[in-house]
Amino acid sequence: MDSTTAIAIASIVTAGLTIGIGCLAPALGEGKSVATALTSLAQQPDASATITRTLFVGLAMIESLAIYCFVVSMILIFANPFWKFVIAHAVQGK
Amino acid sequence: MDSTTAIAIASIVTAGLTIGIGCLAPALGEGKSVATALTSLAQQPDASATITRTLFVGLAMIESLAIYCFVVSMILIFANPFWKFVIAHAVQGK
Amino acid sequence: MDSTTAIAIASIVTAGLTIGIGCLAPALGEGKSVATALTSLAQQPDASATITRTLFVGLAMIESLAIYCFVVSMILIFANPFWKFVIAHAVQGK
Amino acid sequence: MDSTTAIAIASIVTAGLTIGIGCLAPALGEGKSVATALTSLAQQPDASATITRTLFVGLAMIESLAIYCFVVSMILIFANPFWKFVIAHAVQGK
Amino acid sequence: MDSTTAIAIASIVTAGLTIGIGCLAPALGEGKSVATALTSLAQQPDASATITRTLFVGLAMIESLAIYCFVVSMILIFANPFWKFVIAHAVQGK
Amino acid sequence: MDSTTAIAIASIVTAGLTIGIGCLAPALGEGKSVATALTSLAQQPDASATITRTLFVGLAMIESLAIYCFVVSMILIFANPFWKFVIAHAVQGK
Amino acid sequence: MDSTTAIAIASIVTAGLTIGIGCLAPALGEGKSVATALTSLAQQPDASATITRTLFVGLAMIESLAIYCFVVSMILIFANPFWKFVIAHAVQGK
Amino acid sequence: MDSTTAIAIASIVTAGLTIGIGCLAPALGEGKSVATALTSLAQQPDASATITRTLFVGLAMIESLAIYCFVVSMILIFANPFWKFVIAHAVQGK
Amino acid sequence: MDSTTAIAIASIVTAGLTIGIGCLAPALGEGKSVATALTSLAQQPDASATITRTLFVGLAMIESLAIYCFVVSMILIFANPFWKFVIAHAVQGK
Amino acid sequence: MDSTTAIAIASIVTAGLTIGIGCLAPALGEGKSVATALTSLAQQPDASATITRTLFVGLAMIESLAIYCFVVSMILIFANPFWKFVIAHAVQGK
Amino acid sequence: MDSTTAIAIASIVTAGLTIGIGCLAPALGEGKSVATALTSLAQQPDASATITRTLFVGLAMIESLAIYCFVVSMILIFANPFWKFVIAHAVQGK
Amino acid sequence: MDSTTAIAIASIVTAGLTIGIGCLAPALGEGKSVATALTSLAQQPDASATITRTLFVGLAMIESLAIYCFVVSMILIFANPFWKFVIAHAVQGK
Amino acid sequence: MDSTTAIAIASIVTAGLTIGIGCLAPALGEGKSVATALTSLAQQPDASATITRTLFVGLAMIESLAIYCFVVSMILIFANPFWKFVIAHAVQGK
Amino acid sequence: MDSTTAIAIASIVTAGLTIGIGCLAPALGEGKSVATALTSLAQQPDASATITRTLFVGLAMIESLAIYCFVVSMILIFANPFWKFVIAHAVQGK
Repeated sequence: MDSTTAIAIASIVTAGLTIGIGCLAPALGEGKSVATALTSLAQQPDASATITRTLFVGLAMIESLAIYCFVVSMILIFANPFWKFVIAHAVQGK
Repeated sequence: MDSTTAIAIASIVTAGLTIGIGCLAPALGEGKSVATALTSLAQQPDASATITRTLFVGLAMIESLAIYCFVVSMILIFANPFWKFVIAHAVQGK
Repeated sequence: MDSTTAIAIASIVTAGLTIGIGCLAPALGEGKSVATALTSLAQQPDASATITRTLFVGLAMIESLAIYCFVVSMILIFANPFWKFVIAHAVQGK
Repeated sequence: MDSTTAIAIASIVTAGLTIGIGCLAPALGEGKSVATALTSLAQQPDASATITRTLFVGLAMIESLAIYCFVVSMILIFANPFWKFVIAHAVQGK
Repeated sequence: MDSTTAIAIASIVTAGLTIGIGCLAPALGEGKSVATALTSLAQQPDASATITRTLFVGLAMIESLAIYCFVVSMILIFANPFWKFVIAHAVQGK
Repeated sequence: MDSTTAIAIASIVTAGLTIGIGCLAPALGEGKSVATALTSLAQQPDASATITRTLFVGLAMIESLAIYCFVVSMILIFANPFWKFVIAHAVQGK
Repeated sequence: MDSTTAIAIASIVTAGLTIGIGCLAPALGEGKSVATALTSLAQQPDASATITRTLFVGLAMIESLAIYCFVVSMILIFANPFWKFVIAHAVQGK
Repeated sequence: MDSTTAIAIASIVTAGLTIGIGCLAPALGEGKSVATALTSLAQQPDASATITRTLFVGLAMIESLAIYCFVVSMILIFANPFWKFVIAHAVQGK
Repeated sequence: MDSTTAIAIASIVTAGLTIGIGCLAPALGEGKSVATALTSLAQQPDASATITRTLFVGLAMIESLAIYCFVVSMILIFANPFWKFVIAHAVQGK
Repeated sequence: MDSTTAIAIASIVTAGLTIGIGCLAPALGEGKSVATALTSLAQQPDASATITRTLFVGLAMIESLAIYCFVVSMILIFANPFWKFVIAHAVQGK
Repeated sequence: MDSTTAIAIASIVTAGLTIGIGCLAPALGEGKSVATALTSLAQQPDASATITRTLFVGLAMIESLAIYCFVVSMILIFANPFWKFVIAHAVQGK
Repeated sequence: MDSTTAIAIASIVTAGLTIGIGCLAPALGEGKSVATALTSLAQQPDASATITRTLFVGLAMIESLAIYCFVVSMILIFANPFWKFVIAHAVQGK
Repeated sequence: MDSTTAIAIASIVTAGLTIGIGCLAPALGEGKSVATALTSLAQQPDASATITRTLFVGLAMIESLAIYCFVVSMILIFANPFWKFVIAHAVQGK
Repeated sequence: MDSTTAIAIASIVTAGLTIGIGCLAPALGEGKSVATALTSLAQQPDASATITRTLFVGLAMIESLAIYCFVVSMILIFANPFWKFVIAHAVQGK
């Protein structure tokens, strides 16, 4: 297995696992937040403005964690510096 | 095992595992959100408009995490840059 | 083991694991949703219309996650681009 | 180990594991749903019609997830396109 | 290790694991259902007819999941199409 | 390692693991059922006839799952079709 | 490693693991049953006859699951048909 | 590694693991039983005779499961039929 | 596999896993914090200023942990001292 | 690696793991028992005689499980029949 | 694989895993602390000064644990004594 | 790797793991006991003599389990009969 | 791979894992302590002096456990006696 | 890999893992003890002398378990009898 193939495989597998693992906890965290928001709305409908605003800020913070993983996953597929290096050398070497 | 085969296998396995693992937590998170929405509706039927709206926003946020995984999975099967590179070279090399 | 066999095995194993793993969490999430719906119905029978409607929307959202996995599983068995590529070349190469 | 044997083994092992793993969560989800239905019936016997109907819809949704796994398992044993391809070639090749 | 032996071993191991793993969750689900039925009977003895009927329907649904695993296990031992194929060829080949 | 030995080992290991794993969940499920039955009896001694009857039906259902595993385990040790095939051929081949 | 040794090792390891794993859940289940029986006796001393009888029936059912594992374990050590077959052939072959 | 050594190692490792694993659950089960007995005694000191008797019967049942593992462990060390067979043959063979 | 490739693969895999694993706990921690903030707001709407301020400080602390992981991940992809060393030597060595 | 060394290593590793694993559950079970005893003493100081006596009997039963593991561990280090057999033969064989 | 490469890979992988694993528990601990602080603020708004001060001291203690991991991770990447030793010798040796 | 080294490595690794694993559960059990003792003292300060005495007896019993592991660990490092045997023979053999 | 490299790699990996694993539980323990301190302060603001003092003693005890791990980690990187031995010999041997 | 290196590596890895694993449970146990002490102090400030004294005795007992692990870890690094033996022989043998 030559260098190009080995790096391509590592990038594919890592890109998939990063976003796959990295979405686990944000989904659970957001589910917990949304669930508590609904309980709070049912308990205190008058505070719905404050609750909704706090919920959206919280969801944005948690979503940002999944975005980090998605960004790393995209970098590994479409802007991978190691891949660029080896295909540049593979082309040169031929 | 030549380069084409190795990258194809890595793409197949990663595509399946990414969507398989990546759906675990969103499903649990959505299940928790829907369950709490139903409890809240039973407890405070008058706030059903606010509860339903907040639930749908929350479900959309959580679903987006599974969509990230589905997108990466689809990219690996149908728009895989590494695969395109090796089959271009495999064809050239022949 | 030649290319055709290796890709076939990878597709078979991944197709099975994807749907196998991917059904775990949706089943738990739906079970939780249905269970809470029943508790809510017993607690507030008058809101049965709203509860049932919200339950069905929620179940549809969660079922969609399992459908993603089923779709990827079916693509890997019946519409696998990597498999098509290698059998096209295997036939050509003979 | 020739191609035919390798694909046969992969199909056998995957078929068994798919249905084995895929039945875990539906069984737990249905157990939870049935258990809550019984609690709800004991608490509100008058709503038994609504509760029973919602329970059956929910069980059908959850059972459908196990059916997906069973279908994939059966496809891998009795209608496996990869197996058909290799035995067609194995017969031709002889 | 020739083809016949390899497929026989895969069938034996998979048959055992399928039924072994596949009985875990149904047993837990049925245990939960039966336990809740007993609690409900103690709480509301008058609804025993409805509770018993719903319990039996639920147990049948959950048992069906274990039956799927048992069926796949039996197919792999006594009606395995891959095994039939290889012993047919093994006999022919001699 | 010849065919006979390999299949014998696979049968021994699988037979033990099948019954070993397959007894885990039924034991927990039955323990839960019996425990709830005792709680219910203490809470509502008058319903002891109904409770005991429902308990026995439930235990029978759960025990049946362990019986499936025991049956597969016994088949693998004493009525294993793969073992019969190889020893028939081993005897013939000599 | 010859056939006799390989089968002996497989039998030893499997016999130990079967009884080792197979006693885990029955012990937990019996512990739960006994614990609930004691709680019930403290709560309702007048029903001690019914509680004790139901407890013993339940313990017998759970103990039977461990007995299955013990039986398989003993069969593998003292009445193993595969072992008998290979030592019969080993003696003949000499 | 000759037969004698291999079987000795398998017996040593299995004997240790069997008693090691097999004591886990009985210890937890007995701990739970004793703990509940103490709670029950504190709650209903008058029923101490019945509680103590039921506790001892229960502990005996759970202890019996650990005894099974200890017996298998002792058989593997001091009365191992496979070990006896190989040392008999090893002595003969010399 | 030469030095350049090996270090590139190690960097790719580690970069992905670091951010993937490192986002798990912060997402859960933030989800818990946001959820409790919503409960507290519903319970004591008058203290919303203090609650929101404390929540934001807490989220910042937890987010900083994920940032550490993201920083290490970015360093491994774009500012990796080991990679710079080997490509400097690889260029020199040619 | 000769027989003597292999059996010595297996004995060392097994002796350590047996007592290491075998102390896990007894420690948890005793901790639970002691903790409940303290709760019961605080709740019903008058029953301290009965509680203390039952606690000591229970601790003795649980400690006995750890003693089994310690005994097996000591047998493997200081009275190992397999070790005695091989060093007897190693000495003879020289 | 020469010494330089092997140590570089070990440093990369360890640096990533150390900060990845080392952030798990601090994030959970801080999440728990922040969550309880919010509950306490809602319950006793008058004690907000003491609560906030204790919270910040606690967060600092927990954050310090993650800092230890981050420090080790940075040392392994930028001030690794083993790496310095081998590249000094690699340069000398040339 | 000669006998002396192999046994030394096995002793080192086992000694560390035995005490490492063997301290897990006693620490949790003692933590639980101490925690309950504190709760009980706060609830019933008058029974502090009985509570403290029972706590110390319980801690001693649990500590004894960790001592068993420590003893085995020390035996393996400083009084290892297998090590003594091999170095005696290694010295003789030279 | 020569001795120097092998020991360097073992030291790097162990140093990272020791501090990584060793910070898990202290962070959880401190999080629990801080959280309970905040609850206690909200419940009994008058005892804030005693609570804060006890909290700080407790945090110091728990932090000391992480310090042990950090010390071992630092010793392995900067004052490793095995590393010193091998580089002394490596220099001598040249 | 010669004897000296192998034993050095085993000592390094074991020393790190022993203290790493061995600090997990004491930290959790101490966290639980401190947390309960704070709850008890808030509930019964008058018993602070008894509570603090019992807490310190308990922490000392639990800390001792971590000390055992630290001692074994230090022995393996700085007073390792196996290491002393091999370097004595390595020096002699030269």
